[in-house]
Amino acid sequence: MLPSQLLRPTGAQHQGARQPFSGGALAPRRCVDGARVRRSPGAAAPGASPAVSPAPKSESRSSAGKIAESAGKASGSRGSAMIDTQPPRGTRDFFPEDMRLRNWLFGEFAAVSQGFGFEQFDAPVLESEELFVRKAGEEITEQLYNFEDKGQRRVALRPELTPSLARLVLQKGKAMQLPAKWFAIGQCWRYERMTRGRRREHYQWNMDVVGVPGVEAEAELLAAIVAFFERVGLTAEDVVLKVSNRKVLQAVCARYGVPDESFARVCVIVDKLDKMPREKVEEELAAIGVPPATVDGVLGALGLRSVEELGALLGPESEAVAELGRLFELAEGYGYKDWLSFDPSVVRGLAYYTGTVFEGRDRAGKLRAICGGGRYDRLLAAFGGEAQPMAGFGFGDAVIVELLKDKGILPAPAHTVDDVVVPLDAALRPAASGIATRLRRAGRRVDLVLEAKKMKWAFKHAEKLGAKRLLLVGASEWERGCVVVKDLAAFEQKEVPVAELAP
Amino acid sequence: MLPSQLLRPTGAQHQGARQPFSGGALAPRRCVDGARVRRSPGAAAPGASPAVSPAPKSESRSSAGKIAESAGKASGSRGSAMIDTQPPRGTRDFFPEDMRLRNWLFGEFAAVSQGFGFEQFDAPVLESEELFVRKAGEEITEQLYNFEDKGQRRVALRPELTPSLARLVLQKGKAMQLPAKWFAIGQCWRYERMTRGRRREHYQWNMDVVGVPGVEAEAELLAAIVAFFERVGLTAEDVVLKVSNRKVLQAVCARYGVPDESFARVCVIVDKLDKMPREKVEEELAAIGVPPATVDGVLGALGLRSVEELGALLGPESEAVAELGRLFELAEGYGYKDWLSFDPSVVRGLAYYTGTVFEGRDRAGKLRAICGGGRYDRLLAAFGGEAQPMAGFGFGDAVIVELLKDKGILPAPAHTVDDVVVPLDAALRPAASGIATRLRRAGRRVDLVLEAKKMKWAFKHAEKLGAKRLLLVGASEWERGCVVVKDLAAFEQKEVPVAELAP
Repeated sequence: MLPSQLLRPTGAQHQGARQPFSGGALAPRRCVDGARVRRSPGAAAPGASPAVSPAPKSESRSSAGKIAESAGKASGSRGSAMIDTQPPRGTRDFFPEDMRLRNWLFGEFAAVSQGFGFEQFDAPVLESEELFVRKAGEEITEQLYNFEDKGQRRVALRPELTPSLARLVLQKGKAMQLPAKWFAIGQCWRYERMTRGRRREHYQWNMDVVGVPGVEAEAELLAAIVAFFERVGLTAEDVVLKVSNRKVLQAVCARYGVPDESFARVCVIVDKLDKMPREKVEEELAAIGVPPATVDGVLGALGLRSVEELGALLGPESEAVAELGRLFELAEGYGYKDWLSFDPSVVRGLAYYTGTVFEGRDRAGKLRAICGGGRYDRLLAAFGGEAQPMAGFGFGDAVIVELLKDKGILPAPAHTVDDVVVPLDAALRPAASGIATRLRRAGRRVDLVLEAKKMKWAFKHAEKLGAKRLLLVGASEWERGCVVVKDLAAFEQKEVPVAELAP
Repeated sequence: MLPSQLLRPTGAQHQGARQPFSGGALAPRRCVDGARVRRSPGAAAPGASPAVSPAPKSESRSSAGKIAESAGKASGSRGSAMIDTQPPRGTRDFFPEDMRLRNWLFGEFAAVSQGFGFEQFDAPVLESEELFVRKAGEEITEQLYNFEDKGQRRVALRPELTPSLARLVLQKGKAMQLPAKWFAIGQCWRYERMTRGRRREHYQWNMDVVGVPGVEAEAELLAAIVAFFERVGLTAEDVVLKVSNRKVLQAVCARYGVPDESFARVCVIVDKLDKMPREKVEEELAAIGVPPATVDGVLGALGLRSVEELGALLGPESEAVAELGRLFELAEGYGYKDWLSFDPSVVRGLAYYTGTVFEGRDRAGKLRAICGGGRYDRLLAAFGGEAQPMAGFGFGDAVIVELLKDKGILPAPAHTVDDVVVPLDAALRPAASGIATRLRRAGRRVDLVLEAKKMKWAFKHAEKLGAKRLLLVGASEWERGCVVVKDLAAFEQKEVPVAELAP
């Protein structure tokens, strides 16, 4: 078995969720500096191409074209070159061991969401491109996995879930019951030309509150993130939720005369402060008419580290200060104040946020953002609908797994069954099948051995599956209506009447 | 709330799973004869386009382009035209009520699979096109949702899961533990130009056995399907599993001198016998060099209705007869013989089947196939790998829901919580938040009311959520460390110390 390696992404600079693709992830199993290592299985076909890089397109397509013919041949001939056995570049396969981990993680996401009374929704992974096109210089829209379908429609594999949520809310219209608390777990995609081992898909957990104007919504969302962290064994020593408010930057911008309509783009640019040279940031701001002096003002504000200092800067009437103060008060009530930290350098790279913004980080500062979110009260209006207060977060499946692995607390869920049923000869197969049916109807997980196997194999097999019992269906016992039951924990063996096999 | 309607597809002729897209489904909510009814929410924007058909591309894209600007404006202005609030043509949204049904269905799929000791896997919804290209005239490959990505690679949204499974098995190579029993639940896509309300995506449950050459594998797979039917309340009076074997047709073809390499294509063509005029079938067969006389032979064989008759036709040495006989013997052992019916007209439209083929049908014959599958021992060889016996089935999410609805046994799972917590004034919000945390840590599902609401609203809200308790956090009780708890089932109300709220 190939180990499920959790490779650190090479050169990925992405932020966490809601600005997705945190590189790394649930078991990415190749992508070494853009070159694809082709695993050559023991059974490589004669004439298969050598170990590195996929076969030329013409070759692989003609090989695929031969399927109909070779499937019709009487023997398992292997005339064709091997197909590329790797998934498309930047995507992941989930072998059973990876899938168990994914199911565990998604199960935790869902359990927290349900604990908070949230309802799950989903939308197509393929959406109209218009839903994601924004003129804001966001990485997420610049790396859109978009294309034209055969009906000449512009479509895109969704880069995030929020625009789909907004679309659903608009679709419901007045029939939408508010406030609504919805969650989703969905795959998101991006396309970028550089190939540095960065992934093109990830899964994201979203929780959103629709129709609640106060920071009570954000406080509830942050509580859910903390509840998740606690469930998976993380503490406030391991992670921090950095919180700020777009209104901080907005007040600073207003002071320097930056026009309102440029604000969303200013946020996207300022979010890059720690990722690109200051000159480049100033250049981008100048390009949309923002003077370099504003950058000084912004940097000054971003250097603050307490809501009190912020209050001194922005004055007692400041909405930003009031909202942040209320948020911290609620956090204390919930009991997660220790997990929270005011940090005005948190801006988040999405254009649509209007109020509170936050992101989860490892305290050690080694990883990218674990999750991110905030308030976006004007997204529906931007889509041409009636404005509605909304707040939410996205939480990717990548960084959290890296962190849990680093901390040594990533679980490795095993595949187990309750019973392994083995017929001791071919004539007893129907009998063994009936016993399997009986046990399964009683709710037991049963592996029925479908081939003639040696006793030694059966024992090893049952052990590997962590089975509680091994049931041997032999001719003489079967004549008495019994089977031999081996209790694999107690190392006991006895003959049990079939009627007594399942409670 | 919009009702989740289960519309019958208009004119869809698709077979069930493993030749996917059975039309209908989990709550498709529009698609009336190809025209898209645009729901106009109460809040339709001024200037939004009228009720039918999506807005012209240029309009919708320019509206989307305004997001950055309008998100930056101070008030919720609605200057843009409304985006199209419907999902892309032929795809579905899953509102919470739809998602609960989907989760229920997928939960049943997973529970059955686990009861049979199968392990879950997944692969990307986007695969290299080469994986699906076959020269067999299959509908599934003719309607491939394929396109070129920005790196000039031919990719496709998967139309089925089996080729991905085969790819994973080849990737594991010698490290693959055999026999393997894997299942998957994944979204599959097709693209066809005709728009008759047919869907472009559906979800499919697959179970596959790798490495077992005998019909024991097929018998186990059929047992799983029956176990599923039983779990959801269907009986052998409602549904039938029609079973045949490709070797029946192969024997007939051999008798008429049809070359081996044409066999897969013959199967695909013969599968269309009940969907197109016989002359057309003869024409297609003639095009690949099969004489019309063969059609007579095939039709004769397809008219048989017992394995005994088949034995008389094909002789005592026939593999097809032996395998079918063994399958029925095992079915009797499992206890599902009543659900099975030999029907040589079942061929299945996929080129890669080599042995047993089967499909699930409603006995009334009103619906398309519920599920379908069979043995495909030469798919790996066709992909250039070492041959490996494989058998499996696909089971779509569409026809089963139609059937359960017709029978009146489709569940309508509700969203419920245990507790609704309401702070009676703003100053008590932090206290209420702490109570919610306490209850959630104890495993309770808690809806915390995040806005100032009247008592009457809170009661109705708690009732709608099916809450067990309504917790009112009021000033005087809170001073005593208590809250008022209303037991909504018993119509009782009492003051309870916070420490005693959760077990």
